Amino acid sequence: MSTEENTAEDLQRQMLELGAAARAAATVLAQTPVEAKNLALRAAAAALRDGGAAILAANATDMAAAEQRNLTPALLDRLLLTPERIEAMAKGLEAVAELADPVGDTIAEWQRPNGLRIARVRVPLGVIGIIYESRPNVTADAGTLCLKSGNAAILRGGSESFHSARAIHDCLLAGLQAAGLPEGAIQLVPTRDRAAVGMMLTMPQHIDIIVPRGGRGLIERVQTESRIPVIAHLDGNCHVYVDGSADLEMARQISLNAKLRRTGICGASETLLVDRQCAASHLAPLVKDLLDAGCEVRGDEYTQGADQRVVPATEADWGTEFLDSIIAVKVVDGLDAAIAHIENYGSHHTECIIADDMQTAERFLAEVDSAIVLHNASTQFADGSEFGMGAEIGISTNRLHARGPVGVEQLTSYKYVVHGQGQVRP
Amino acid sequence: MSTEENTAEDLQRQMLELGAAARAAATVLAQTPVEAKNLALRAAAAALRDGGAAILAANATDMAAAEQRNLTPALLDRLLLTPERIEAMAKGLEAVAELADPVGDTIAEWQRPNGLRIARVRVPLGVIGIIYESRPNVTADAGTLCLKSGNAAILRGGSESFHSARAIHDCLLAGLQAAGLPEGAIQLVPTRDRAAVGMMLTMPQHIDIIVPRGGRGLIERVQTESRIPVIAHLDGNCHVYVDGSADLEMARQISLNAKLRRTGICGASETLLVDRQCAASHLAPLVKDLLDAGCEVRGDEYTQGADQRVVPATEADWGTEFLDSIIAVKVVDGLDAAIAHIENYGSHHTECIIADDMQTAERFLAEVDSAIVLHNASTQFADGSEFGMGAEIGISTNRLHARGPVGVEQLTSYKYVVHGQGQVRP
Repeated sequence: MSTEENTAEDLQRQMLELGAAARAAATVLAQTPVEAKNLALRAAAAALRDGGAAILAANATDMAAAEQRNLTPALLDRLLLTPERIEAMAKGLEAVAELADPVGDTIAEWQRPNGLRIARVRVPLGVIGIIYESRPNVTADAGTLCLKSGNAAILRGGSESFHSARAIHDCLLAGLQAAGLPEGAIQLVPTRDRAAVGMMLTMPQHIDIIVPRGGRGLIERVQTESRIPVIAHLDGNCHVYVDGSADLEMARQISLNAKLRRTGICGASETLLVDRQCAASHLAPLVKDLLDAGCEVRGDEYTQGADQRVVPATEADWGTEFLDSIIAVKVVDGLDAAIAHIENYGSHHTECIIADDMQTAERFLAEVDSAIVLHNASTQFADGSEFGMGAEIGISTNRLHARGPVGVEQLTSYKYVVHGQGQVRP
Repeated sequence: MSTEENTAEDLQRQMLELGAAARAAATVLAQTPVEAKNLALRAAAAALRDGGAAILAANATDMAAAEQRNLTPALLDRLLLTPERIEAMAKGLEAVAELADPVGDTIAEWQRPNGLRIARVRVPLGVIGIIYESRPNVTADAGTLCLKSGNAAILRGGSESFHSARAIHDCLLAGLQAAGLPEGAIQLVPTRDRAAVGMMLTMPQHIDIIVPRGGRGLIERVQTESRIPVIAHLDGNCHVYVDGSADLEMARQISLNAKLRRTGICGASETLLVDRQCAASHLAPLVKDLLDAGCEVRGDEYTQGADQRVVPATEADWGTEFLDSIIAVKVVDGLDAAIAHIENYGSHHTECIIADDMQTAERFLAEVDSAIVLHNASTQFADGSEFGMGAEIGISTNRLHARGPVGVEQLTSYKYVVHGQGQVRP
């Protein structure tokens, strides 16, 4: 019987066994010294390099199936592994090994008048369930970030990348074995059955956090169905606001980079707001740059007058995350109108103001309610590596726990450790 | 038409209006300087003192209805307000005014090689929905903690305390008015209709966090139904472990205090574990103290032999939060058995080890996976005030966001503020 012929009952039993093994491994990982975790990461990197041929063969199987199913070129590219991409994964593991271990850090410490010494100490979250789509490299990235932060991981990849993910997972297991760590520390759901996702979302006794990585459909399903806390971002509808005090040259460079450096990432800007104060001088060159670079510009009436290639923006455009070479452009009446527009249409992810006037900039940074607010810098810096946090598992638009890039530190919780000398409470 | 005759549609409209007003107020509060927040708190305290007669009259109405419904004496006591309890509420408000303002704090700050300056800055969570039961003073405590941390609050008190909560809420509104802050900052759901709770749990566009305060039934309902993140603790099944190296006198004092100082609070101990190594000398006096103080002792076989008043413990007793003068007592084979028992039956809230051997103590503190772990101090210290955090809205057994006592700092999120000089991402 193949794994895909499992009955629902078999699957349930299998998932609960997976969960119990993860919980047991999490208890071990919480007490594992950093040296052992780093040894596992480096051994896994070596296994990825040694196992390149097997990974490429597994990937070829996935690619052939995907081509038969007529997946889009963009999806095929996400699925594809090459020797360079395998090397990048291995380097990524080694980079995580270089990161400081957050577990055991004393975040705060104080003494009470009665002599009690109270410390807030970082501990792992426990078991993290990661549900992702076609990119097979998420298997390595997510698994190793969880390991470094002392968490057990249950990985559930997309069905298209089934064989690729298994081949990568084999290398992670080799790393765990080399370090004498339990195999339950990083587990891959061994079936393509979609029901497994629903089960993961409803086993709070075995999974502490769910991290979905993928398109809007996946995130929404997870947020709706999960009985377990979710760390996720739904939309990155990011804005660049060019204030009346902005330097034109800086505005041109940042606007172009924020939109077009890579259009498919969540930190790409989707709407450009231009202060009416500088529209006469700044709008036309800003729009021309974008159009000349092949970007479709959907503008309000004013913007349509700035260049004949601009097409009219609809109401829906202001709220759309294009993730493509399309931008919405609007002229607004200064800072307050810009903030109001962002509050109304934005997704609280990442917004930028370009301004020479510091007072205006500081008001924007204080009043715009987004995970990341930037002054005179591209929204494409919205990234854990660019923030110096090492690798990231995603960018959270949650307000609770972790906001913005989620790296190893954000994958931890804390406990209070209290030292007394016999104190009782009066 | 009385508020209680509202149709479901009217109620829905009313709740959405409440939510929209809270969201608008939250935007104002996020930018409100600490002086205005403190002015509101002190003016509300004055209004509580001035309005004592009106509050007592409202409370008398609630008490009369509760007596007619034959509520238990414990419930009646929770509901009762006296001049002393009103004064305590007013003092509580003034104490919150004394606390440092967490909003705007720079939690961390660093510079990147490319010159970007990145700061992680504390911001309010937004709108907090608090759902509580009979204690009317939660109206003041929760409302003011939310205000101090820059959050708007939507309060939903128990139907028994309906009139008392309204009278207290009037004083909070007087405080807001005195400081020129929007009335939407602290709102009380103006109906006893239970459907209002279900609506609060499903308006994520208007409420960011739900904090339930009450018995197990309420917490479970909220955790099951909420589509909004919940900060809560379900159980406080706390343990005291007396290690073989424990000083007998210290063990006696802490065991007694941890169980009996107040039996109804979540930090009260529910199970006493005694190391077999010291059982011959320590068990009998520990058990005798508890029995002599009027506590029922449910023991394993060994403990039953230590005093004839001990009754047999059942399997269910190990997992029960008695919140009463009842304790379960068991003899275990040393530290590992104690940790395993706690992992198996505990609720990850608060546990204590009494030991002279520091190595044993440190292992307990590291390996027991609870929000609070104490060495040689009573579990009854599990309290925000005792931790020096000022007032608390509860003790969280969540692993995400806030673990342990939840004070003003734990009612905040953060944002990343990035200062650049024109940087674009290569």
